[in-house]
Amino acid sequence: MISVVEARARILAGLAPTPPETIGLEQAWGRTTAAPVIARLTQPPADVSAMDGYALRAVDGTLHASLRVIGSAPAGHPFAGTIGPGEAVRIFTGSVIPPGADAILLQEDAERRGDCVLVCEAVVRNRHIRAAGQDFARGDTLIPPGRRLTARDVGLAAAANHPWLTVHRRPRIVLLATGDEIALPGEPIPPGGIVSSNSHGLAALVREAGGEPTILPVATDDRSAIVEAVEAAVGADMLVTTGGASVGEHDLVQAALVEHGMELDFWKIAMRPGKPLMHGRLGRVSMLGLPGNPVSSLVCAILFLVPALARLSGRPGEAPPTVRAKLGAPLGANDVRADFLRATLTLDDAGELVATPFPRQDSAMLRLLAQADALILRAPHALPAAAGAPVEVIRL
Amino acid sequence: MISVVEARARILAGLAPTPPETIGLEQAWGRTTAAPVIARLTQPPADVSAMDGYALRAVDGTLHASLRVIGSAPAGHPFAGTIGPGEAVRIFTGSVIPPGADAILLQEDAERRGDCVLVCEAVVRNRHIRAAGQDFARGDTLIPPGRRLTARDVGLAAAANHPWLTVHRRPRIVLLATGDEIALPGEPIPPGGIVSSNSHGLAALVREAGGEPTILPVATDDRSAIVEAVEAAVGADMLVTTGGASVGEHDLVQAALVEHGMELDFWKIAMRPGKPLMHGRLGRVSMLGLPGNPVSSLVCAILFLVPALARLSGRPGEAPPTVRAKLGAPLGANDVRADFLRATLTLDDAGELVATPFPRQDSAMLRLLAQADALILRAPHALPAAAGAPVEVIRL
Repeated sequence: MISVVEARARILAGLAPTPPETIGLEQAWGRTTAAPVIARLTQPPADVSAMDGYALRAVDGTLHASLRVIGSAPAGHPFAGTIGPGEAVRIFTGSVIPPGADAILLQEDAERRGDCVLVCEAVVRNRHIRAAGQDFARGDTLIPPGRRLTARDVGLAAAANHPWLTVHRRPRIVLLATGDEIALPGEPIPPGGIVSSNSHGLAALVREAGGEPTILPVATDDRSAIVEAVEAAVGADMLVTTGGASVGEHDLVQAALVEHGMELDFWKIAMRPGKPLMHGRLGRVSMLGLPGNPVSSLVCAILFLVPALARLSGRPGEAPPTVRAKLGAPLGANDVRADFLRATLTLDDAGELVATPFPRQDSAMLRLLAQADALILRAPHALPAAAGAPVEVIRL
Repeated sequence: MISVVEARARILAGLAPTPPETIGLEQAWGRTTAAPVIARLTQPPADVSAMDGYALRAVDGTLHASLRVIGSAPAGHPFAGTIGPGEAVRIFTGSVIPPGADAILLQEDAERRGDCVLVCEAVVRNRHIRAAGQDFARGDTLIPPGRRLTARDVGLAAAANHPWLTVHRRPRIVLLATGDEIALPGEPIPPGGIVSSNSHGLAALVREAGGEPTILPVATDDRSAIVEAVEAAVGADMLVTTGGASVGEHDLVQAALVEHGMELDFWKIAMRPGKPLMHGRLGRVSMLGLPGNPVSSLVCAILFLVPALARLSGRPGEAPPTVRAKLGAPLGANDVRADFLRATLTLDDAGELVATPFPRQDSAMLRLLAQADALILRAPHALPAAAGAPVEVIRL
């Protein structure tokens, strides 16, 4: 059995980012940049006004001065001339500052009298003027490669005049549930069988992580059925199976795939839920075998598949981020396996986060996982912990 | 000027959830349920084994006992007979417990000898048996209406045998940038003009919040152009404009829309960035006028548009969640307007969250907003705050 950290490192080591593709900016949210986003223009392109008012020479903007208004410069319609002594130009938020001007008289500090404007509050040089390039200059790297784009990043790329961006192709993840007892939702259920939650739950997680999931039909516990299904994964970045990863008599996936040419890397991991976790490679396709229990399968996916998707998408692919919380109930000593306890999160009176594990942690109880807010991390051999003790949790 | 809280309440009050639609489960992630998800079966459907091993009568499973193995019951292939005294059936994780059995002898505690199996560790009644309905029973409400579906929820719905779900239609949000100085990325830029970041940034935010954005061509500062564009929003749930919401000479949106029949609700709000914020209604379409400055526009969208999308999607639509952090730099007293300071988040040596505002908070500096991790909330009239003081922040 290997550790969670080693398993993740070995899975990630076998993965390279998908090739780049160019997409329209309106499709860019959540995608990962494959090239830096470099400003194609300077923003603002010239000195512009941050307010509505009048542009003038600072030396003219003394209290009670009266200036001749020689024109108007709405945003998008720069003033053609130059502002001389005693002159002012009507100006608006975003208007280019006309040559000669170096101050703004705010609209609320101005009194218009026919062709003239009266200064009711002395101006300050350069105040309310946004200098050219204040936000960014042409050629600046605005967004590095390997960043998953937020809505703010998309806005920034737009402002820098990028109608399309180069991003990594969405990782293609093929999902295969195995087992004679398994049916997909809506399909006939075998005797004593159950409906498989794994493929659809994992597909949703893949989507959330920016991948493109494909759900294969369930493979029965039969070597040829498994091999046939796996052939469908050619061209995928990763094949994820559920069930059949350990070595019981009816756990055929590993045997079938090894016989089919899979290089097996490891298949046991020191964690709970989820001891059977298989990793290998079939030609160009990375292969991740998740446990069949729905809770184990989703928890392992959070710990290994989501980082794998990050790596495939062009990001490093780190362990899920954790936050500090206080234990809401005491915990006993842990054994040799890292534990990931399903828990609720609440705030105590002091506004501090409290993580309370569910009393039952059976790895088949999907309903509790759906209701959980977090996973409490318990290291191998962790000592007993009292209520109130600090723990690290993964927010779900 | 009205407060942020009142503005949000008034925007939300005018919105009703979109009608329900039925979609395939593979499309359900991130959608909001319009009906409860009720279990269509009992899970597990019968008492099943949680481990590989042998099913037997607990009274027979004493140390060193030898039992006759009368059959095998792989998952999906229940044993047809009944287990009598001195008998055992080979069983696997997920197998139905045969009638008569009430205990599991683990594989690692068993020694197989031909047709018999030797008990190397005494069994405990009902241990390693998952009772029928342990996860859920047919008819249980597993997911309430009005929940935005996580990957775990999707898995749970699958396990409950739902191939499709009834969710609220994605809210249709039409985005209109206005201004003679504005061009969309890749389009010709007018003299002294800039490329609009607002439509694309907001579209990404709409997508993130589960809506369906449509970006209209930019409307020039001309009443007929604005009215024409607004006609395109018929059938939308909400029209969001950027720019032109205040009442400068070249801020025509409000005038054009009121003339076109918009019921104006409010158009000024006591916050920074983003004082001009217009809300109204045009027939069946809710209307939100955001400021033209890109930072103001995105911050207002986080505070008002994202909750509006939640309400339209069938959820309550609350204020963005905040977390507690320590100030990384002192802040002066605040004026009458609620302030939302762009800030970075770090962890200090004690593992506590520290929010450090950027020295410059100009509402045109989109690059800083893209780099920000959080918005620090400063209430109207907030007193000066020292470094280390607790503040509430919205994580970005």
